[in-house]
Amino acid sequence: MATDQLSATFAALADPTRRAIIARLASGECSVTELAEPFEMSMPAVSKHLRVLEQAGLISRGRDAQYRPCRLEPAPLKEAADWAERYRALWAQRLDRLETYLQEMKAKEKKHGRQSRRK
Amino acid sequence: MATDQLSATFAALADPTRRAIIARLASGECSVTELAEPFEMSMPAVSKHLRVLEQAGLISRGRDAQYRPCRLEPAPLKEAADWAERYRALWAQRLDRLETYLQEMKAKEKKHGRQSRRK
Repeated sequence: MATDQLSATFAALADPTRRAIIARLASGECSVTELAEPFEMSMPAVSKHLRVLEQAGLISRGRDAQYRPCRLEPAPLKEAADWAERYRALWAQRLDRLETYLQEMKAKEKKHGRQSRRK
Repeated sequence: MATDQLSATFAALADPTRRAIIARLASGECSVTELAEPFEMSMPAVSKHLRVLEQAGLISRGRDAQYRPCRLEPAPLKEAADWAERYRALWAQRLDRLETYLQEMKAKEKKHGRQSRRK
């Protein structure tokens, strides 16, 4: 379905197990058996997730037929982060406006509080 | 399918048209008709994409039944960027190693070049 790299990356990241696998591999390469352990998942289920990650270029597998360690390939993660970062200004602006609004509300409340006491 | 917010966000971003809609809305809210124009898409197709974005909390729609402008909601984008940013150290490290390797190769080549000339 996903034809471009960025779509394939985001589709691969749209699953908590696959994100957990990425987090695990960030601390070093390991075998499929080691990966499967903490997830209490069948090997075919883990293999399916690994295939999605591999097709998106987020992991690579060792060549050894017996022990094919999985290794994180961070380049697509960088592309995904770079894409989302474009909107940083936008969310920072939104937070700034919220803060200004809250300060105005606080100032009004204070003023109102003083007026109430004067009555 | 996606039960958690981050999975819903990534699934919504896994489509070039939906990312283009986000890019368009980053410069200001607009109507569905205005959004549909540059994409040469049927209104139902655009509406379907907007529904996915709305369900993921990436956009909100105005209340007016006649003109329901779409507006970008950047909070989920921040969450997605924050998640990917965790791996920045990793890809920076990988690039550093690549650079070191290239410099070593260059140094070897230089040395080899001098030796060849001596013969």
